[in-house]
Amino acid sequence: MKRSPLGLKLPEGMRDMLPEELARLEEMEAKALKTCRLWAYQKVATPGLEYRACVEPDAYKHDDLYKFFDKNGQILALRPEFTTPIARMVVSRLKKPLLPLRYCYSGDVYRNNEARYREFRQVGVELVGSGSEVADAEVIALAVEIMKSLDIPNFQINLGHNGIFSGLAEELNIKDHLRLELEDGISRKDMVRLEGVISQSPLPPTVKELLLAMPHLTGGDEVLNKLKEWTRLQAIQKAVESLQNIFQHLEDFGVKDYVALDLGILRGFSYYTGAIFEGYLPGVGIPVIEGGRYDNLYADFGVNSPATGFAVNLGVIQEQQAEFRVEKAEILVYGDSQREVIKYCRKLRQEGKLVEMVLEPLSDQEVASLAQSKGIDQLIKV
Amino acid sequence: MKRSPLGLKLPEGMRDMLPEELARLEEMEAKALKTCRLWAYQKVATPGLEYRACVEPDAYKHDDLYKFFDKNGQILALRPEFTTPIARMVVSRLKKPLLPLRYCYSGDVYRNNEARYREFRQVGVELVGSGSEVADAEVIALAVEIMKSLDIPNFQINLGHNGIFSGLAEELNIKDHLRLELEDGISRKDMVRLEGVISQSPLPPTVKELLLAMPHLTGGDEVLNKLKEWTRLQAIQKAVESLQNIFQHLEDFGVKDYVALDLGILRGFSYYTGAIFEGYLPGVGIPVIEGGRYDNLYADFGVNSPATGFAVNLGVIQEQQAEFRVEKAEILVYGDSQREVIKYCRKLRQEGKLVEMVLEPLSDQEVASLAQSKGIDQLIKV
Repeated sequence: MKRSPLGLKLPEGMRDMLPEELARLEEMEAKALKTCRLWAYQKVATPGLEYRACVEPDAYKHDDLYKFFDKNGQILALRPEFTTPIARMVVSRLKKPLLPLRYCYSGDVYRNNEARYREFRQVGVELVGSGSEVADAEVIALAVEIMKSLDIPNFQINLGHNGIFSGLAEELNIKDHLRLELEDGISRKDMVRLEGVISQSPLPPTVKELLLAMPHLTGGDEVLNKLKEWTRLQAIQKAVESLQNIFQHLEDFGVKDYVALDLGILRGFSYYTGAIFEGYLPGVGIPVIEGGRYDNLYADFGVNSPATGFAVNLGVIQEQQAEFRVEKAEILVYGDSQREVIKYCRKLRQEGKLVEMVLEPLSDQEVASLAQSKGIDQLIKV
Repeated sequence: MKRSPLGLKLPEGMRDMLPEELARLEEMEAKALKTCRLWAYQKVATPGLEYRACVEPDAYKHDDLYKFFDKNGQILALRPEFTTPIARMVVSRLKKPLLPLRYCYSGDVYRNNEARYREFRQVGVELVGSGSEVADAEVIALAVEIMKSLDIPNFQINLGHNGIFSGLAEELNIKDHLRLELEDGISRKDMVRLEGVISQSPLPPTVKELLLAMPHLTGGDEVLNKLKEWTRLQAIQKAVESLQNIFQHLEDFGVKDYVALDLGILRGFSYYTGAIFEGYLPGVGIPVIEGGRYDNLYADFGVNSPATGFAVNLGVIQEQQAEFRVEKAEILVYGDSQREVIKYCRKLRQEGKLVEMVLEPLSDQEVASLAQSKGIDQLIKV
């Protein structure tokens, strides 16, 4: 049936991938997964569709899910990420898991927002069952090794800790409304807004000073010493010591040079609880890696288990890279007898050759021109 | 946030894949794609979401799409297959395609029906721009080679031709309603129903006889000679000659032994127009391969181009196979100093070893027991 104009189009935020484009993405995906494999992470998969009640339990929140009703009137959603579905899988499938679990994954995720691409390929890992700082360091080091395996120069991992702000907020009993505004100002590094919110707040002067400083607390581990001297608040002391231990491990993993502190990274109210990190490429405004510790997520599924992990957004990295050379056929085979052409192709394929066969009767000149257009070097007439 | 009982579940028809399950599927996928590559088919990808107007232009038809409204009130659908989206891509992205195009793909497709799995992995190919019978034979031979590469014994390809029934229907001007009933009876090999429909129809006796025979016209190419003698109807003569040519090519491709005729295969009213085929495994009631010629599809997108192709349903094949051994870590490393453990793992990984690190302080006995449970042979204490 003839398509309407709409039927000829791609939905907004979707994209096709021709061989050159897909080969580039899949080469990156394969390299990232190979690195995960060497670090003993085993690949798992979850489905494209989940109940909304799984991936977005707070139904009143403004969200960017693609969602719809199933035949029974329940709300389904396209997976927006893998961390939560993998928690659901681990809790429901593994009765006595051998902890720690090291899982990796790759697949497309869907976000119904205003971004250029609303379907994009993620590769990521989950390290489930260890609350130790060496686990935090392992996943950060693995993120660095993945980026190195992709031959990406000048990437940087920024490391923060959710315990600094959330500890402060709890110890000072900061109300949810104010907390949300502060969090937003700090994480966006929006100083005008942050100063406005802070000046009207009833917080003590030293805390105001600290909150205003947070977006700028970036750099090497000297930042941690500075912060430690600044305050005696228990929660902050604990977070700082944790980051110091992680930094020591990162040095041992040989990846410290790729990691900078950024205490302005915040993902409060979500499932992140401890060390959190983001990976950036020069000139790209959004993180290409997002990760961190989310010790409360598994409890939401009925099992207490610490966990950490990250996801790499390959789609964004791909957009920054040059075109990829796609593999061409090695030999183009043609001739007057289709029988002989078929048999010769068969022989070459048995030898492992990448062979393309001419299907229509063409002249020598036409075949030569076809081979040239296709970039096939060798031409055989049988 | 604590999950509701629904939030702990998988939607109906969806499945998770633990490492053993996924490794098996991905091994099959890799082998199938490698065979496609050797036959000069290049991999492409289309998105998970399409406009319904693309994948199901007849909005009033009963269908099994997962569908929902986007923010602009248009109906979106999860892709139910790849052939139509690839036609959309070819027509919209390639202004001057170098025909014939040989594309392959792999990915999950979604069918909102009553099947056990409503998301399943397909690998398939499209050969666009050739109407020749050698093109038909090439894709059938490639389907056979893929099944052989998967080490599947006893599979069979059944080959039919849409032109036999549709030619008959057109030449005799059989009305749509009767045509649909006949088609359904023949393709389901439902003889009781078919006899009922035929006996009440106004068709000539020889045609009644042919229609009743169609579900049983199966076997080698002797069936074609029989059919040729039976009738002088132009459409049938043409289809028979086409199948004879294809059979000759299949012999040259060395795959004739895997292919049997089944003139009861029908997919009328859809986009299939010529030779059509299905692949079966012993004891499995649904086809694991579906393919054929669909010369009218591209015209529906505004470009006249013959095309043929097939899809392999890897999900169904996977269910028939034994568990797959998943790759384990080669070495488990532990010790009293985390620094030394990290450094030693780093060294082993640089040598390309698949290494797992113990994160918590464990006794020698606990580590030995962990290694045994995980099936890791080598244990190193540093």
